[in-house]
Amino acid sequence: MKLIRFGKSGKEKPGIQLEDGTRIDVSKFGTDYNEEFFGTDGISRLKEWLRSNTSSCPKVGADVRLGPPTVRPSKLVCVGLNYAKHAAESGMALPKEPVLFFKATSAIVGPNDDVIIPKNSLKTDWEVELAVVIGKKASYVSEANALEHVAGYVLHNDYSERAFQIEREGQWCKGKGCDTFAPIGPFMATADEIQDPNNLNLWLKLNGKTLQNSNTSDFIFNIQEVVSYISQFMTLLPGDIISTGTPSGVGLGLTPPSYLKPGDVVELGIEGLGVSKQEVRAYQ
Amino acid sequence: MKLIRFGKSGKEKPGIQLEDGTRIDVSKFGTDYNEEFFGTDGISRLKEWLRSNTSSCPKVGADVRLGPPTVRPSKLVCVGLNYAKHAAESGMALPKEPVLFFKATSAIVGPNDDVIIPKNSLKTDWEVELAVVIGKKASYVSEANALEHVAGYVLHNDYSERAFQIEREGQWCKGKGCDTFAPIGPFMATADEIQDPNNLNLWLKLNGKTLQNSNTSDFIFNIQEVVSYISQFMTLLPGDIISTGTPSGVGLGLTPPSYLKPGDVVELGIEGLGVSKQEVRAYQ
Repeated sequence: MKLIRFGKSGKEKPGIQLEDGTRIDVSKFGTDYNEEFFGTDGISRLKEWLRSNTSSCPKVGADVRLGPPTVRPSKLVCVGLNYAKHAAESGMALPKEPVLFFKATSAIVGPNDDVIIPKNSLKTDWEVELAVVIGKKASYVSEANALEHVAGYVLHNDYSERAFQIEREGQWCKGKGCDTFAPIGPFMATADEIQDPNNLNLWLKLNGKTLQNSNTSDFIFNIQEVVSYISQFMTLLPGDIISTGTPSGVGLGLTPPSYLKPGDVVELGIEGLGVSKQEVRAYQ
Repeated sequence: MKLIRFGKSGKEKPGIQLEDGTRIDVSKFGTDYNEEFFGTDGISRLKEWLRSNTSSCPKVGADVRLGPPTVRPSKLVCVGLNYAKHAAESGMALPKEPVLFFKATSAIVGPNDDVIIPKNSLKTDWEVELAVVIGKKASYVSEANALEHVAGYVLHNDYSERAFQIEREGQWCKGKGCDTFAPIGPFMATADEIQDPNNLNLWLKLNGKTLQNSNTSDFIFNIQEVVSYISQFMTLLPGDIISTGTPSGVGLGLTPPSYLKPGDVVELGIEGLGVSKQEVRAYQ
């Protein structure tokens, strides 16, 4: 099943993308895709509800804006340097255990919303990533049980301002949580749709040219390891999102480094999780 | 006005602590202290409502648990090393601009809840801090206008696991966002109650012995600078919490360093913002 949310920013309604690509409005199910939905087995309840209600759900036009496919989570935890070649291109050592950081959840936008280069930015960069949506509270879970805590998977572009991230005092969060820096979607695929999350092709194109092209089988730490690891430090709540790192091919790693400018078009995709497309705009 | 929330964890109701210390239940006002409340001038509306409704509000017993005084925010942004002596005791250079990091909001608990030493922790430490609650969306605000975006102030203990924070790969978030690591309260004082947030005494005692004792006039970056600065990197939403750093006297800075153990009692306070008290427990 593919969860979507559609409509104006901040006023999104829950929907479903059917197998044939048709999108339907499931507002009548009665709840949005939030912490309570995931934490009370909303996916099973919605599946059941759809058996008798799909045909009466209003269709959503193809021109309607898609929002992020889940409600703003309590946290958006990211894994840094989780592909060996990307660690090398970033000039950073291969981590011995997962590197974690947070993105501000206020950065989350729809999959095809414009990305806005922040004021004073010179180095806005792209990062295609596979993200995981937590379905069940996870605290001190083992790797063996980790996937039971996953509701589904989603495409994420972990935009990063490299000067803010690396050249300003302290931690990475300054360059990771700028507004619009987390386009998520087009849809959340429920876990049963993805046979092996640790073996998915993912790619990113800038102005039509492929710059990232890899497979999650190149993870240093796979999904089970990442979910279990994070849960040793904090409780993951239903609806929380974990973004699992990007493969090589970001702007920082090009020779010479190259960053986004207004008018650029970024397209990205992951096998089974659809594609998204962001146009780049300056802050105004 | 002093906002409180009371009742069982996760089921808190909104209340007010009156000038004489009496606590009243204001559930009938109709909204909890969340993003919408702060973003729609809820403080003024509540003040107005209280004029004719205070006497009919149920009293809250002194034995009822206090929760965090505001609903879980979209983010809990912290400033690191914001007092010169604390930077020195941490063995870190004085920052040229604010150091920022996030605490997981799942770490937030009531002011007098137990603090739980995480599994495998050896270095759980304390940090009394003045925290700011945002009242109005803040994006690229100037220092001159920054305080207009502040709804109020609150006491926070920024518990930190130093080994998780500093000795594990990468960013500080592993040691900052453990469950129970952010006791907040007892109450949020609205901004009009605090004449000068940049001149407040704050202190912390461990088992009755004063270990932190300072004044926010020792800030390297004051409240106006911090709010304005963060808003250059991300939009602060109504209800978001900014914790402004701790003065010297943490366990990491003692000779030799000393950390919390089960049975310890931590008490802390800030002038005008009340006191809180946490008992230390092992994870079970």
